[in-house]
Amino acid sequence: MSDETKLFDRVCLIGLGLIGSSLGAAIHKFGLADHVSGYARSKETRDTAVKIGFVDSIHETAAQAAANADLIIICAPIGAMEAITREIAPVLKDGSILTDVGSVKKAVVAAIEPHLQNTVHFIPGHPIAGSEKSGPESGFAELFTNRWCILTPLENSDQTAVDKLRDFWLALGSPVEIMTPSHHDNVLAITSHLPHLIAYSIVSTASDLENVTQSEVIKFSAGGFRDFTRIAASDPTMWRDVFLTNKEAVLEMLGRFSEDLSALQRSIRWSDGDALFDLFTRSRETRRGIIEAGQDTAEPDFGRDHVVDKTAKDK
Amino acid sequence: MSDETKLFDRVCLIGLGLIGSSLGAAIHKFGLADHVSGYARSKETRDTAVKIGFVDSIHETAAQAAANADLIIICAPIGAMEAITREIAPVLKDGSILTDVGSVKKAVVAAIEPHLQNTVHFIPGHPIAGSEKSGPESGFAELFTNRWCILTPLENSDQTAVDKLRDFWLALGSPVEIMTPSHHDNVLAITSHLPHLIAYSIVSTASDLENVTQSEVIKFSAGGFRDFTRIAASDPTMWRDVFLTNKEAVLEMLGRFSEDLSALQRSIRWSDGDALFDLFTRSRETRRGIIEAGQDTAEPDFGRDHVVDKTAKDK
Repeated sequence: MSDETKLFDRVCLIGLGLIGSSLGAAIHKFGLADHVSGYARSKETRDTAVKIGFVDSIHETAAQAAANADLIIICAPIGAMEAITREIAPVLKDGSILTDVGSVKKAVVAAIEPHLQNTVHFIPGHPIAGSEKSGPESGFAELFTNRWCILTPLENSDQTAVDKLRDFWLALGSPVEIMTPSHHDNVLAITSHLPHLIAYSIVSTASDLENVTQSEVIKFSAGGFRDFTRIAASDPTMWRDVFLTNKEAVLEMLGRFSEDLSALQRSIRWSDGDALFDLFTRSRETRRGIIEAGQDTAEPDFGRDHVVDKTAKDK
Repeated sequence: MSDETKLFDRVCLIGLGLIGSSLGAAIHKFGLADHVSGYARSKETRDTAVKIGFVDSIHETAAQAAANADLIIICAPIGAMEAITREIAPVLKDGSILTDVGSVKKAVVAAIEPHLQNTVHFIPGHPIAGSEKSGPESGFAELFTNRWCILTPLENSDQTAVDKLRDFWLALGSPVEIMTPSHHDNVLAITSHLPHLIAYSIVSTASDLENVTQSEVIKFSAGGFRDFTRIAASDPTMWRDVFLTNKEAVLEMLGRFSEDLSALQRSIRWSDGDALFDLFTRSRETRRGIIEAGQDTAEPDFGRDHVVDKTAKDK
């Protein structure tokens, strides 16, 4: 631990799944705190956390873990956040920073803010990092490297506290963007929530056909379906909560998507090849933008790593 | 060249993109023919093919390339297949096998069969392999390894010729499945065509928002959107032809998908958390089946290969 990198004496992680375990590992790796305390609802997860060692102390209750912490990060499903806040609010230290990593922000503000004293700095956050894997064994310190973290301070948030939380995420390797909770929820509705919804939906459609067997769907999934099942394997509890709590923005984006899909359907029905070709060509531009922004690799994904390595080219 | 592995004296590739160039490389690598002749419409592609060396001879016309060949593989977009067949039909050797790699099979049969003499064995085929990359420089010999190839012989197809073509694909590393052209088109509509259509459509929706900028869509794409842009970067000409020629099956699958999406939309609107949770849990099963069948890797995809390597675990 170097005093040059240290930002907090004591950081508390409530919830020790993929994000919580990665945060613990990263705080240790980058020397950002003297002590990481942790709490998870399940004993199995608590035991795993101690075994892997990404927390310095483990606690039987969220309140015990949060006592005396300078930074408290709630890494639990959104549906659990209100109860957690009610429990920990009485023990939170004056001047401490409370944040979260939830995928929705307006609902998180509504669940947390009413229960806090105004001596605690509440600054909602959301690292845009993750994978279809969940649980404490999936975490690793580099999860946040070169992935954006969005902070959505409230109107009365203390600027010094916001700056300090921003420095924390920058130290984890995440560039930080500041926006309102409402704008966050719109941006994520299109970049994350709608894609997951569609992936879940097409997997469901494919499970339910009379003339194509499930074994055929699996055998021939390399034609594109495979890519959808990857994100449709994400944590069901987390995603249920996302859709229940960002209902308005998700339904709006879903409405727009359905309109666009209907237009495409019409182009197919009327054999309008030019319209299809134009649309497909424009999609390539968006892909190029994402690769240029470093948010994906340019290597082709053949679903087998040794081949990806052999053919890696940056065009 | 070993006589033990050789299956044909002369193989002709018409069309030298990702599939054609991979076939040329694989035929050489596995020693399946004495000579690979090639034709591509564009001079640039022909020059690249000679430079890379995945053909032994290059020709200015498809007919010149196809003359004297024992196996002719059309690797061109479906829309070009009828004209190619008209051109090469008069020079095809008696007893030669003509196949293709098109993503749709009923339309390919309609485009090719009427123009052939009955001295030629026509056996449509479709390797379920590829990537979002196209062009002769993207090919490699292992593209077909452990990827299914579907053959759709016609009712009057010669069994010896079917067996020989099956041996050819097996030698390339592809397990082979036999089905009717019509069943193929249904299977691929759900496993490949619908996923591509949806990916193209959501990229279009995301390009067209008033309250979220294109730069935000790109920045925060790691939340899921990124995975859709990968397949929406596929070759526009090829995919236009797929949707124009497999219209009926695609519209049927699209109708089912839209119904399922509407049901999901309703669950969100009415906050039916149990229905969402059940559906999301079932999707994980399909994912597990695909990994067990070897059609994708279990490693999490964080969009950065060095991290994938570090965390690779087979759970």
